[in-house]
Amino acid sequence: MKSVKDYIRTIVDFPHEGIMFRDVTTLFADPRGFRMAIDQMLHPYAGMQIDKVVGLEARGFILGGAIAHQLTVGFVPIRKKGKLPGAVISEAYTLEYGEAVMEMHDDAVKAGERILVVDDLLATGGTAAAGIKLIERLGGEIVSTSFIIDLPELGGRKVLEDMGMDVHVLCEFEGA
Amino acid sequence: MKSVKDYIRTIVDFPHEGIMFRDVTTLFADPRGFRMAIDQMLHPYAGMQIDKVVGLEARGFILGGAIAHQLTVGFVPIRKKGKLPGAVISEAYTLEYGEAVMEMHDDAVKAGERILVVDDLLATGGTAAAGIKLIERLGGEIVSTSFIIDLPELGGRKVLEDMGMDVHVLCEFEGA
Repeated sequence: MKSVKDYIRTIVDFPHEGIMFRDVTTLFADPRGFRMAIDQMLHPYAGMQIDKVVGLEARGFILGGAIAHQLTVGFVPIRKKGKLPGAVISEAYTLEYGEAVMEMHDDAVKAGERILVVDDLLATGGTAAAGIKLIERLGGEIVSTSFIIDLPELGGRKVLEDMGMDVHVLCEFEGA
Repeated sequence: MKSVKDYIRTIVDFPHEGIMFRDVTTLFADPRGFRMAIDQMLHPYAGMQIDKVVGLEARGFILGGAIAHQLTVGFVPIRKKGKLPGAVISEAYTLEYGEAVMEMHDDAVKAGERILVVDDLLATGGTAAAGIKLIERLGGEIVSTSFIIDLPELGGRKVLEDMGMDVHVLCEFEGA
């Protein structure tokens, strides 16, 4: 039987030349692939108390919605600047060229709530680190962070572990 | 007990003056609210054959991920222009000012597959109509379209029904 990794397709030179883009849409579109991915993301947390799932825009929404529903907990989006309608807190982070800003509603997480953070890909860890800071500024306690793919050459896992995070990934790809 | 509609917050003058923005993030962040919303979206389709769930960027990803996992079927995203890495088909549609383009991978739906389309909000129906056209161009058979909110004054339900669509909504708000 195919593994989660086997369903992921590689697109060469997207979004620009020299990038091997790991495309999870082929994983998500397959009934067995998507079921396995969500179930395997959930397994480490069986029996643990989680109050909310936070998903990072945009593919983290697909995973976070599924995981929050399965756990019967709330879902909170962290979005790119300007997308959330209510009062927000924001964190800037560095990209390859320039910087970007992630935002979260300032009432989306309450002090002491136990949070699971999910996204599809752990690369440099910049987006996830910004998300973690937002959650911690509101007093959320991050139980763990979970990704489908880790790109070990980009060092994101170490960035998050140095912040004290527990990190789970389903598979790794060499070559960023 | 609160209904799904009771969990939705209204933000005045977002994204610009005169708009009453119906904010589902307060629904999604509540464990009972999010569970009820997904379960109620699923009820009309109990016992029906659905092969894939298609979600419209970006809040449709949260709902679509949850519904696809619950049904143990595949999930397919329809995204704004330039976000999908593989070969796409695209459909332009009219916005209040100018136009926008939605895209889908050209291999994401196969002829004869039975599709459920989900998004949070049915307003003018422009985005959903573009998504429906994309799915039908690939030969997908749309079982139904499902939304949390309908804004009846904007006429989106009629637009979709005139395309032959089955439309389910969980609640309505007056005042667009």
